[in-house]
Amino acid sequence: MYDVIIIGGGPAGAAAAVYTARKQLKTLMLTEGFGGQSIVSDDIQNWIGEQHISGFDLSEKMEKHVKSFPDFVDVKMPEKAVSVKAIRCNDQNVCDFEVVTDKGNTYEGKTAILCAGARRKKLGIPGEEEFNGKGVAYCSTCDAPLFKGKAVAVVGGGNAGLEAAVDLFPYATKVYLLEFSDTLKGDQVTQNQCRANANLEIIFQAQAKQIMGDKFVNALVYTDRTTNQDKTLEVQGVFVEIGSVPNSDIAKGLVDIDKYGQVIIDSKLATTSHQGVFAAGDITDDPFKQNNISMGDGVKAALSAYNYILKRKQRA
Amino acid sequence: MYDVIIIGGGPAGAAAAVYTARKQLKTLMLTEGFGGQSIVSDDIQNWIGEQHISGFDLSEKMEKHVKSFPDFVDVKMPEKAVSVKAIRCNDQNVCDFEVVTDKGNTYEGKTAILCAGARRKKLGIPGEEEFNGKGVAYCSTCDAPLFKGKAVAVVGGGNAGLEAAVDLFPYATKVYLLEFSDTLKGDQVTQNQCRANANLEIIFQAQAKQIMGDKFVNALVYTDRTTNQDKTLEVQGVFVEIGSVPNSDIAKGLVDIDKYGQVIIDSKLATTSHQGVFAAGDITDDPFKQNNISMGDGVKAALSAYNYILKRKQRA
Repeated sequence: MYDVIIIGGGPAGAAAAVYTARKQLKTLMLTEGFGGQSIVSDDIQNWIGEQHISGFDLSEKMEKHVKSFPDFVDVKMPEKAVSVKAIRCNDQNVCDFEVVTDKGNTYEGKTAILCAGARRKKLGIPGEEEFNGKGVAYCSTCDAPLFKGKAVAVVGGGNAGLEAAVDLFPYATKVYLLEFSDTLKGDQVTQNQCRANANLEIIFQAQAKQIMGDKFVNALVYTDRTTNQDKTLEVQGVFVEIGSVPNSDIAKGLVDIDKYGQVIIDSKLATTSHQGVFAAGDITDDPFKQNNISMGDGVKAALSAYNYILKRKQRA
Repeated sequence: MYDVIIIGGGPAGAAAAVYTARKQLKTLMLTEGFGGQSIVSDDIQNWIGEQHISGFDLSEKMEKHVKSFPDFVDVKMPEKAVSVKAIRCNDQNVCDFEVVTDKGNTYEGKTAILCAGARRKKLGIPGEEEFNGKGVAYCSTCDAPLFKGKAVAVVGGGNAGLEAAVDLFPYATKVYLLEFSDTLKGDQVTQNQCRANANLEIIFQAQAKQIMGDKFVNALVYTDRTTNQDKTLEVQGVFVEIGSVPNSDIAKGLVDIDKYGQVIIDSKLATTSHQGVFAAGDITDDPFKQNNISMGDGVKAALSAYNYILKRKQRA
């Protein structure tokens, strides 16, 4: 029986684990790995205190910090939670929690902190699955070098899309940036970086329709939403950068989740609708998804869990 | 006219400045210095990603990061805001803000982010002012070495008090820890560190009453709250570690402040009761005062300010 089961090893989970360890809570961390989504970033420039740090280096810092408390934190990795359920609830709905994992293990804890993050959204159009890894890509930092001398389309005009374009400039001969609306959503800095590059062509009001190819991608068809006409771009790569889906399926039925699949939290305390369950990071309805915010909320979740366990002990 | 005026250069202010800079907002930062209250810590162990970092080193990291955007952030230091007022409000209460500083300067901005932090609480008992710097101290990391071979009292049994005791162990021959209630409030780790030291004596139910001395402190009188009797400890030092007061006077009348003097925020967005004014860090009513939380909330404040300015432009 653990005091706390932390699900996820991104910035939120790592921050929570450091704090539960310092509170001497018996902690289990279940994660596929450390670092979260930004582990694939070559160059994080907005982790406060570091002008430049790679996602990999940041993930190593988190991992080392968490693993410096072996007496308090058991890290099970790679091991993924597949469900979290309330068990043995008393008449005040004070429960223990049971977490089942992809390895078939079952763990029990007095509290659970949901830090399972989010995953990339897919377009859901013909050709996307078929050419995944054969020209269709979701990680520009990882895959940009593969498109040297080629023409590439990036779908999505938010920060992720703009950053993908910037990643591609050193390699691709032409980058089309497709945005569904009539305006880019990313940071002004990154927008300017993009616009300064002659190889970039921004296409507004564009809805991606189909990815075509032979063995590899050779074209992207999109609908021009102003004329409703389909157009074809001859490209050898398509980067899908249209946002994320929270990994909240594990907690469905346990805690309140909003229409975007985000776990609804009180952001002051990182509490959820179920007492004893806390959440932090990209799995939550906090509107800005940023490493520093996830860490701060992970700390809140850990301290709230600690306070909850103390109260529970006093009542018992 | 600035887009954003950030008041304070602690973790919240530094995080906000990095983000407003990356959004290319013309930013003014007014601060007495970087690093906030933890600049005096020898060894911060819970800044996520670093097992050990000094407050000074952390403050330097923040300062460098903020100053890496000279085109966007003007840092005025040391310069302290003394008041923030709304000016030129329109009928929808969209205002500009005027900040007056201790140098007599007046600055104007479209938004203000309050990150002025908090300062140490004082006991308010006879002798405290008189012997300040003559045995009465508020910063154990700074002043512990001055008490080599002496007996010292620490007032306050929360984390700050416990950490002060730990700081004193290498120097003081005896450390009395006075706690007002019947239980310590600090981290279990730090409590255990404390209890393991034979030179420590914990006194519960103790209310500090008077600090006595000649040229320097030579005694602390406290009331034993269980018997209501006064007792005297022969000590050459008194460390006051009983908490903090938010530096919210500058914004009185502008935004809602709770009974503890904390600026009331919506923790999801770091917004205050006045549109265009945001707040983060120890000045706010976020219950846990921690560097990582302050940074996360500073990021939220910056992104909320950016969104607000965009909307304001669209309306104009």
